[in-house]
Amino acid sequence: MPASHTDAIAWGPGGSVRLLDQTALPAEARWLTIASVEAMTEAIRSLRVRGAPLIGIAAAMGLAAEASRLAGEARPPQPSCQGWPTAEWLEAACRRLAAARPTAVNLRHTIERMRRAGLEAMRSGATGPALAQRLRTEAQAIWDEDAAMCQAIGECGQELIAPGARILTHCNAGMLATGGIGTALGAVYVAHQRGKAVSVIATETRPLGQGARLTAWELARAGIPCRVIVDGAAAWMMARHEVDLVIVGADRIAANGDVANKIGTYGLALLANCHRLPFYVAAPRSTFDPASPTGEAIPIEERRASEITGGPQGMNAWNPAFDVTPAALVTAIVTDRGVLRPPFGPAIAALGI
Amino acid sequence: MPASHTDAIAWGPGGSVRLLDQTALPAEARWLTIASVEAMTEAIRSLRVRGAPLIGIAAAMGLAAEASRLAGEARPPQPSCQGWPTAEWLEAACRRLAAARPTAVNLRHTIERMRRAGLEAMRSGATGPALAQRLRTEAQAIWDEDAAMCQAIGECGQELIAPGARILTHCNAGMLATGGIGTALGAVYVAHQRGKAVSVIATETRPLGQGARLTAWELARAGIPCRVIVDGAAAWMMARHEVDLVIVGADRIAANGDVANKIGTYGLALLANCHRLPFYVAAPRSTFDPASPTGEAIPIEERRASEITGGPQGMNAWNPAFDVTPAALVTAIVTDRGVLRPPFGPAIAALGI
Repeated sequence: MPASHTDAIAWGPGGSVRLLDQTALPAEARWLTIASVEAMTEAIRSLRVRGAPLIGIAAAMGLAAEASRLAGEARPPQPSCQGWPTAEWLEAACRRLAAARPTAVNLRHTIERMRRAGLEAMRSGATGPALAQRLRTEAQAIWDEDAAMCQAIGECGQELIAPGARILTHCNAGMLATGGIGTALGAVYVAHQRGKAVSVIATETRPLGQGARLTAWELARAGIPCRVIVDGAAAWMMARHEVDLVIVGADRIAANGDVANKIGTYGLALLANCHRLPFYVAAPRSTFDPASPTGEAIPIEERRASEITGGPQGMNAWNPAFDVTPAALVTAIVTDRGVLRPPFGPAIAALGI
Repeated sequence: MPASHTDAIAWGPGGSVRLLDQTALPAEARWLTIASVEAMTEAIRSLRVRGAPLIGIAAAMGLAAEASRLAGEARPPQPSCQGWPTAEWLEAACRRLAAARPTAVNLRHTIERMRRAGLEAMRSGATGPALAQRLRTEAQAIWDEDAAMCQAIGECGQELIAPGARILTHCNAGMLATGGIGTALGAVYVAHQRGKAVSVIATETRPLGQGARLTAWELARAGIPCRVIVDGAAAWMMARHEVDLVIVGADRIAANGDVANKIGTYGLALLANCHRLPFYVAAPRSTFDPASPTGEAIPIEERRASEITGGPQGMNAWNPAFDVTPAALVTAIVTDRGVLRPPFGPAIAALGI
């Protein structure tokens, strides 16, 4: 069975990208047409597209879209290839996209891959439309591979989920965060398909509400029971024995298994630990960063205070977008290559990333 | 020095109550004039006035306000005392107010006290305006005593606060929650007055944002540095060694020291414990409930899902307003009679409530 692809992104007319604006969900399914690196960078920065795997895919597709546009626009009336994508264009566009958000490593991985594909194509003489086609092919391959990895994560992850399990998840690590069926939610979807009668508790995930807005929305579409709670209620649900396991995605996993993920994840891992509940992280290979020996090396994005305060009201706020969960609090990491158990260092090294 | 009184409530014209509508803060300081038990019950239910001590005071004042109105309205043109407050009126009004919210025990304590004062006054022949005056005097006494208890809590609590301490608090246990300078924030105010250069980290406190809206607002007025974080960021701040202690208020404290307080408190207590930070609870005697042997006996209010979801969107939510923190996670309970240390059972019994 071919892996399902997310329907949060698509190719649009003339090589452009169609993007579901996630900031408008669940009130409205608003689609954007993006044909420039600038517009895609803005969409990533402002979280119109989010989720570590999906922003990597979106950035790659945005790069290909700009290449198509430049190659297309530059033909008639110009007789030459003036304005066609060049190596300088490629380097600048990649730098720009890679810098859109700092924490998720998938973005850097996919952009580096697109850069290499573009340079290699140029070395073998591809220009204009041929180069654009090569970039689009690479972006599609990145997307297809992510969808396949999600499916594999789902298959591996569902083995950790008992029939009837009440699964707590944070933020959104689903179809809206990946190129496929999701990472953490991928496991939930596959368990559901296998008839395991699972249900989900989605933490609201302040400040931007990805749990309440996105996870609840996509699970409702899939017919999987889901209840939203405020982030502060997770511990109380655990104490009441209403949670069987916690599973989350990741924005970057260090070589030792430390996990950067949405702010609040570290607290949930500690609380799961206190209540003797398994705490699982699900992520594709592209989320691992061998260059970060531990979580201390992972840059943590701090976003505008106004995401919390709602605007200028003379209120100070501190708004880190992510936190780091030490490997010691992680029961297992579900990857597309199987379930990793502690000690994670050797298990991650064995992935050969 | 006489204890400062909150400026979130006041007597209004004709024996009515003036109430700062806390749902409109911090955008607007909107005042309501309340002259009926019905209106006060609505104000308590909808959290226009909140905070365990303050809702007790507000309910008592609302009862007195209705008595004044009934006594006043019934005079001219009626020659008799028709319509004057009766024992039946008193019992019904007390039942109604006491049922406005279930978890905070202060409300039940003050209403029982008002009921007794009213019945005693009637037994000694007081009717109409004399009865209303007696009820107003009792309500004022309840308020004055709470303000004095806040001051005493502040004095006791500040001894637990070192110079320069970075104090994390949840919800709002300040001037906006009590008849005086607050309970948890009472300790902060007194430490500040003593020149201890403290600062506060206020958790946003979803779903209703009492930390972001109320604690940040009242601390800004007092010139005390305060930063707001999302509830999910508390653990990460602790891990970064940016928190020295946690102090919160309480809605009800059981005989064994279990503490019912705003949802999220239990999680913070666990997290403080994991990070070896002191976790303090500050509350006046009126918050203790000898009739609840442990936290299991405390009714936990569940509120509308729409407080989380923002309205009908096909989203399910579970919205408990409070949780229970086991006594074992509490470092000390700061009362107006001194600082209680574990084992709390005997210490609470010794308060003689």
